[in-house]
Order: sequence, then structure tokens, then C-alpha cells
Amino acid sequence: MAVAAPAASAMQSMTGADRLCDALLAHEVDVCFANPGTSEMHFVAALDRQPRMRCILGLFEGVVTGAADGYARMRDRPAATLLHLGPGLANGLANIHNARRAHSPMINVVGDHAVEHLPLDSPLTSDIDSLARPMSRWVKRIGDPTRIDLDVAEAWSQSMAPGISTLILPADMAWNEHVYRAPPARGRRLPQAPLQQETVARIGAAIRTKRRVVLLLTGAALREQALSIADGIRRSAGVEIYAQGANGRIERGRGRAPIAKLAMTHEIGGRMLQDVDMVVLIGAKEPVSFFAYPNRPGRLAPANCEIVRLAGPDQDLVQALEWLADEVDAPRAPVAVAPRAAAAPVASGALTVDMVNRLVAARLPEQAIVCDEALTSSGFFDLSYDAPPHDYLQITGGAIGIGIPMAAGAAVACPDRKVINLQADGSGMYTVQGLWTHARENLDVLTIVFSNRSYATLWGEMSKVGAQTPGRNAQRMLQLDQPELDWTKLAAGLGVESRRVTTASEFSRAFDAALGRRGPAVIEAMV
Amino acid sequence: MAVAAPAASAMQSMTGADRLCDALLAHEVDVCFANPGTSEMHFVAALDRQPRMRCILGLFEGVVTGAADGYARMRDRPAATLLHLGPGLANGLANIHNARRAHSPMINVVGDHAVEHLPLDSPLTSDIDSLARPMSRWVKRIGDPTRIDLDVAEAWSQSMAPGISTLILPADMAWNEHVYRAPPARGRRLPQAPLQQETVARIGAAIRTKRRVVLLLTGAALREQALSIADGIRRSAGVEIYAQGANGRIERGRGRAPIAKLAMTHEIGGRMLQDVDMVVLIGAKEPVSFFAYPNRPGRLAPANCEIVRLAGPDQDLVQALEWLADEVDAPRAPVAVAPRAAAAPVASGALTVDMVNRLVAARLPEQAIVCDEALTSSGFFDLSYDAPPHDYLQITGGAIGIGIPMAAGAAVACPDRKVINLQADGSGMYTVQGLWTHARENLDVLTIVFSNRSYATLWGEMSKVGAQTPGRNAQRMLQLDQPELDWTKLAAGLGVESRRVTTASEFSRAFDAALGRRGPAVIEAMV
Repeated sequence: MAVAAPAASAMQSMTGADRLCDALLAHEVDVCFANPGTSEMHFVAALDRQPRMRCILGLFEGVVTGAADGYARMRDRPAATLLHLGPGLANGLANIHNARRAHSPMINVVGDHAVEHLPLDSPLTSDIDSLARPMSRWVKRIGDPTRIDLDVAEAWSQSMAPGISTLILPADMAWNEHVYRAPPARGRRLPQAPLQQETVARIGAAIRTKRRVVLLLTGAALREQALSIADGIRRSAGVEIYAQGANGRIERGRGRAPIAKLAMTHEIGGRMLQDVDMVVLIGAKEPVSFFAYPNRPGRLAPANCEIVRLAGPDQDLVQALEWLADEVDAPRAPVAVAPRAAAAPVASGALTVDMVNRLVAARLPEQAIVCDEALTSSGFFDLSYDAPPHDYLQITGGAIGIGIPMAAGAAVACPDRKVINLQADGSGMYTVQGLWTHARENLDVLTIVFSNRSYATLWGEMSKVGAQTPGRNAQRMLQLDQPELDWTKLAAGLGVESRRVTTASEFSRAFDAALGRRGPAVIEAMV
Repeated sequence: MAVAAPAASAMQSMTGADRLCDALLAHEVDVCFANPGTSEMHFVAALDRQPRMRCILGLFEGVVTGAADGYARMRDRPAATLLHLGPGLANGLANIHNARRAHSPMINVVGDHAVEHLPLDSPLTSDIDSLARPMSRWVKRIGDPTRIDLDVAEAWSQSMAPGISTLILPADMAWNEHVYRAPPARGRRLPQAPLQQETVARIGAAIRTKRRVVLLLTGAALREQALSIADGIRRSAGVEIYAQGANGRIERGRGRAPIAKLAMTHEIGGRMLQDVDMVVLIGAKEPVSFFAYPNRPGRLAPANCEIVRLAGPDQDLVQALEWLADEVDAPRAPVAVAPRAAAAPVASGALTVDMVNRLVAARLPEQAIVCDEALTSSGFFDLSYDAPPHDYLQITGGAIGIGIPMAAGAAVACPDRKVINLQADGSGMYTVQGLWTHARENLDVLTIVFSNRSYATLWGEMSKVGAQTPGRNAQRMLQLDQPELDWTKLAAGLGVESRRVTTASEFSRAFDAALGRRGPAVIEAMV
């Protein structure tokens, strides 16, 4: 089989894989996180002929898709992923789920057997379409190689809606050659549903009649400009503003309007919404409990509270806030720079979760990107409103194993910014392979592992179900000791420098040292 | 919420989770590989009240499902898995896919949100049913807690058919209490489709007319007794016998009839079947190429070759062989003990893949269980026909990352036998977390990592697509150097003793030392 040269112009014969690659590049999709297999070798060959496409290998597909999510959160445009058949896609689904919940754009390319080979049901055959649908906004099996560019254009449009696009690429669609007579088609942004002026008026009326109104924000409403408008409404009209419980990205720190997250539990979130008359959704969903528990309501707002959707994640959230600000005559005053709440903590004594989070917030580099999968060791967010300006990325869909991959993607997206990944140990183990990608690409990521040697989240959950004293079987499901994980050795095995710290002063020194240089590092904090 | 005491008798109030646990135990499903989350806490509490149920934690769901597969291959009955919602299931799907291809029984219990919580679409919500179906034989969402035992009985029956059963357990089905008035129902074996005597006669006629006939075996047809019958047919009737390309388990070594595997490539497998007039499927599928390639047929048998299905994997394969033996008057002579083909290799000089495989075959402990995910470093199988009697388990569905988990499950199933896992490095990284379970449970597993620092399989595949000199992008997709993985550090980080060896004599000493003691160990062979 001849190999086509890359097509700089039209009228050239090239493989479907070459065309797919060109079509992605036509949409500025120029990063491909990948773990390819045989069925994707033509696509790899195509990437090879396109030096503009940056290929980044993950040693497991959960790394690949989590990295694509982190990239998209920082760039607001999709990376491509390259996945090997049904099992490769399946391995990536958990972090695709998180990306879906973050409203991240993503274009997955999933190789499949050649069309004639599929009915033979060879061992790696599975129903890829069915696996892809639950976590994708849009799924397309490429069936006409001469129209691959149109499929990519649609995948891009759907991903920018935003959402997950999954293209299934049968091997023969990739390897067959065709003469393409025009440059690849370009996708357009899908039209956004217009905002409803009457909804704005209704919310304005509620605010003016002194009813208790909460604005619940996510997505683009959590960027600096939007937050500033929301804060103006808050200050002038007396509403409360919250970020949704889990969000793709929040622009945060001094100069940005501080915002609290609405807790996703009945006990805390429900109390935050006590006596609220109206919750206004701005990109967000109706607030609900993360899990259900016996005899507790799943909805967090009171039963008589009005839930009003001003704008969905596929609408213009900044415009929604502007209209609402106009409606209630909110001034567009700059956000007052928040004063530092407290002096930087003294780094001495025992190492605690709180101490780590305080030190990180206090010494955060300007324009750092913070990835937060600390779970029960979280606490950074509440301390960070007056930290230096930074971006805050967190686990969104509850599928653990996002931290290390997301940090990789964010670092690829923003190579000049320090990425700090606050990582729970149990969750980190899900995609520990991602540290190798940190090393491989020399990414400027500092991973701080909160080593508590347990699925600490679940201890709390066990007590909620009534089993106050977990027995042997339960304990063995919740404890990660016996043997203890050693993150310094794991990191070293994957090519990343690492240090274990057991006191506050050790952490302080290790943290400062890591901030003082570029490149990947791990600090294992024994908390 | 009150916690029910375990029910020793009927007429007791207990949770649905307790009932589910009792129903599993009623089918002797007494091992549960698990990575639970909040929605499964009631099931964990139930396990706690049932010390008969052995719970084994995996730090990632691919470990959980791969271990259940290894267990089932050795025990011919299912273990349970406990998985957390859609992402937890998704993480386990790749090894469920392998289990499906191995015809392994398995019962997955996948927690879901409470029924009333599902429509609220909280962050961890996804379409679990759709995710489960492609890799399952049977999927059931538990909807009536008073009938959980019937659901488990059906799950068990379906799993023994054999296949994958997936039970979706909404949290409220687990936590609600009921009075169960009878012990759990017991499932029955599904009736097997009867064999067709006319098919046997047709095959017999072909054999007697000296047509070239191949018997293709898998599943139960690869156990000692069945192999002996097949070998009798081979010797007396002049047919050839092959194992399918990938199989769940082969009983192998001295005293067992040696059998070759049919290669799943056009080049080798196609040649093996050249001029064959009839392929008889005994549990096996029509032989096909693992992947498709341009201008090569996917079917391995010649176009005019008859494909005759004597028995499917859900039929009685031993009876099928017995009927065929009777048809052709094959004697039931014992298998001649194969002479040793060659003296044990001298362990000196450079460490090569072949040297490792020869040493392992020559010094294999009696009744060892060999797990083979060596991929391009394979070669053990061909050397092992005259090794001491052992069981041979291999990757079946092409979804890499089965070796370490499968070895764990096999060791749990057969605690008195040495398990040797021949592990490719790239594949091993997929579920490296499984080494922690080896340590946690003190499993007698020796993992030999063939460290070649590349996805070596794909180098061959690249050349098949015509890209003879992979460029920078392609190389970075295939090479695992930069940085090099250090398996000794990875193993140590997960609590497993390990040693790196670079010469044949070092390997020989490390191998002997590992055989001389019980418990988990890793040898990183730099080949």
C-alpha cells in the first residue's frame, strides 16, 4: 500500500486518516492525546505527516481523556483523543463523564475494525456505538471517507456547543485513499437558543419585591468578567451568588469576585438554601444532593422555592448576567480587591490537611492553575479567594482519577503557568500512570498527594448508612494501608521527582523548592 | 436507620443488600472483588455481616473485574464484583470484555442512585444499563427488593451458561428493609442445546473420506480429559487439532495432550489452514484474523473450506468430543507422556525473551498457573507442552491490562498453587495498581515483566500499514522510554518485593529465589 504525502493543497490523493488529520487541524484542533492500537496505525501514520499536530501519549486511556478535559477547560476548545476500539474507549469513559459534567469540548476518535471485518466478531470487537452514547453529546460512525471532513466539522460544532463528540473510525475508512478536491470543510458554531427577556423580567420582579433570590452559576459564568457582573448584582440588589457544587473552571483570587460553592449535601447545601424563594440557574442545574440517603430529600432548595432557568450551558451566560444587571440597575463597578484574610500561616508543627491548603493558598504563584481532586482533604477553595489570581479546576462528575490527567492537559494548554494538583491518594491511584506523561512531556506540574491511606470519603458514608463500627470486611474495603502506598517510589518509577514530607516545615521547604523550578514533581504529604 | 442483624433463618427483617448477599452465598458465590463507593455502602455493610463472603479490594475497577475473570477461569464458577455506578463499571469494562471472550462466568453488582434520585441527574448519574449491555450476556436493574433473590438466581444461571451477568442495584433497593419469609431461591443451570448426531455423522464422513479436517477447540474442550479424547481422534483418524487463538484456560504439560494454538494472522494462521477441507468448531468460533489489513481476507480458512459447528461454548464439549470419537472409532488410549524436547537451557549470557521463557518452562513448579500477557514477548506456550502439568491462562479479548488482575484472581481461587504472570510492560501499566492487591492479600504470584520499553506490538503494525520509518509523532506513540519505567520502584511503591535483572544468570537466580518462597514478587527482566 502506497503512503500518501501530506496534502498541502487540494486535488491530492491521501488516506482517510490524512484527511481526518487535516480536518482536525482546519479547526485548530492541534493536540491529540492518544493511546493508539493496531486499528489506529493509519491515523498515527497521518499524525506523523503532520508535525503541526502535537501527539501526547498516555499509558492508559483514562489519562488520555482526562488530559483532553484539562486542556479544554483552559483553552475553551477541544483537543482530540485517539482511542483503541471499545475497550480503549471504555477505559477513557470515566474521565469523559467528568468532562461531560464540566461542559468541556472534546473530540474522541475511536478506531474500529474495518467494515468487512466487523461481522467476523474477532476478539477485540465490541459495540462501540453503544459504549460511546451514554457519555457523548454526539456520536458518528464514519461511513463515507469522502465526507470525513464534514463529519469532523460536525464533531467540532457539537463539541463547541459544548459537549463530547465521538467519531468512530473503521480502519478501512482510515487506510483507503481518495482524491480530495477541496480543503476540509469548516464547522460553524451551532446557533445558541436566545435568552428570554420575560424570564429576566420575572427574576427582576422577584428581586425588587425583596424575595430571597440566589443566582447559581457555572461554566462561562465563573470567569472574571461574568463574576464581576454577578457580584455587581449581588451588591446592588441583595441577591446571593453561588457557584454550582462542581465546576469546570473558576477564575479566582485577588481582583476577581469571590464566590462560594453550593455544597451538594442536604445538611450544608440545604441549609445554604433555607428560606430561599427563587434559585436562578445561569448555566447551572437545579441544586441536588450528590447522593441520595434514606429519608432525605434529593432536592436542596425548599419545596416552595421557584427554580428559574435563565440560561443553560449552551447559551450566552455573560449576556444573561448583563441583561439581569441591566434589569436591576446593577452598577458595573470593579470588584474591590479582597484584603488578605489572615497572615500567611506559620509552617511549623504537625502536618495537617488545613496547613497544606493554607500554605498552598498563601504562596500560590501568580496565574497558577490549581487542579483539585483532594476530596476529603479539600479546603483549598475556601482559602483561595484572596490568593494571587489563578484558575481553579475540580473533579466535576464524581468519577475519581481526574486529577493527574487533568493537570497534564492544563499544563499542555498553558505551558507558561505552574499547575498545582491537589490529589487525594485513593483517587490518584486510579490514573497514577499519568505521572509518566508529566515526565515524558516535562510538564510544569506539582502534584501534592494527601496521603491518608484510606478512602476517607467512605468512612463518613458508612456512618450515614447506620454501620457505626465497620467490621473486618468493611474496613478492608475502606483502608489503603496494609500495605501502605509509597508515592515517592511510584513517582520515581514513572520518572517524576518526589519527596515524602511528614511535618509542616518539611512541606513548606519542599513546596518552595518545587515552586522554584520548572518540571514535574510530587510531594507526598503524610497527613 | 436501623441495621438488620444477619438473617440465619427466614421471617427476619433485613435490608435488600443483606438479602442480595445471602442470595449470592446461596449459590456459593463467596468471593467479592470490589471497589465500592457511597451508593454501595449498604452492600458493604451487608458483606460485613457475612464473614463467609471474602471481600478483596482493588484500587481500580479494571483490577476488580480482571481478578473476577481469573478466579472464574480456575473455579468454573463466578465471583461477584462490586462496582460504583457508571464510571466504576466503565473502568471495569475492558476486563469484562476479556472475560466475555474467555466465556468466564461473572456476576457484577453495580450500585446506582436511589430510584427517586435518578431523574435529578446528580453529577455521578449515567446510563448504566447502556454501558453494561455491550459486554454482558444478561443485564437486570433490580426493581423489586422482595424479589432480589430471584434476580440473583437468574444472574447465576446466566453466568454459568457461561457469560457475564450484570445486576444494577439502586441504593434504595439496597437500604430498604423487608421481611423475607423464605431462604433465597436457588438458580438452576440453563438447559444446554442438545448436540446434533447428524453433524457428528457428517464430520465422521468427511474424516473417513480422507478429507483434511481440523478440530478447533476452546473452553472446556481444553481441559485434560477433553484434550485426551481429542488427541485420540487425532492419532487414530488423522485429523489435526488446534486450540483457538485465545482461550480462557488450557490444562497443559506432561501427561496432557499437547495442542498448538491457531495463529490469528493471515500469514501464519492462514497457512496453518491451507488446503483444509473442513474446520470443526468445538466451543470455538470460525477462525479469523485478529485485525483486518488492506487486501487480506479476514477469514483464515480457505474459501471452499466447510466450517461445521459441532458444539458452541454453551453446549457439552466433552460429550461432543466423545460422540465424535465414537463416530470414528478412536481409542481412549492414555496420552503418551511427551519426552522432554531439550535439556533445560543454560542460564548464561545476555537476557533474551526466549531465554526467560525457556527457563520458566523448564523450571515450572508442578501445578503452577501461568498467566500470559507477554504479547510480543510470548513464546512460553510453545515451550510448555512438556513442562510439568500446569494451567495456562491468556489474554482473550485483546483488551490489555488483564495479566496482573487475572493472576490475582487465579491466586485467590487456588491458594496452594504458584501463579506466574508473564507480563508485557506496556500492558502491565494499564492495571499496575493490581500489584497492591497481590501484596494486600499476600497472594503467591510471581510477575515477570518483560521490559522492552515500547508498545512492541505496534512497531510491527506500523510497518504493515506502509509507514516503514516512523517519524517523530509515531515514535512517540510507540516508545515507552523517555522516561524509562522502573518496575522495581513501582512494585515497591505498591508493597511488592521486586528485582531488576539484566543477564540470564541474574534472571535464573531471581527466578529460583522467587520459586523458593511464597508471596508476591516482581522480576523486571530487561530484555
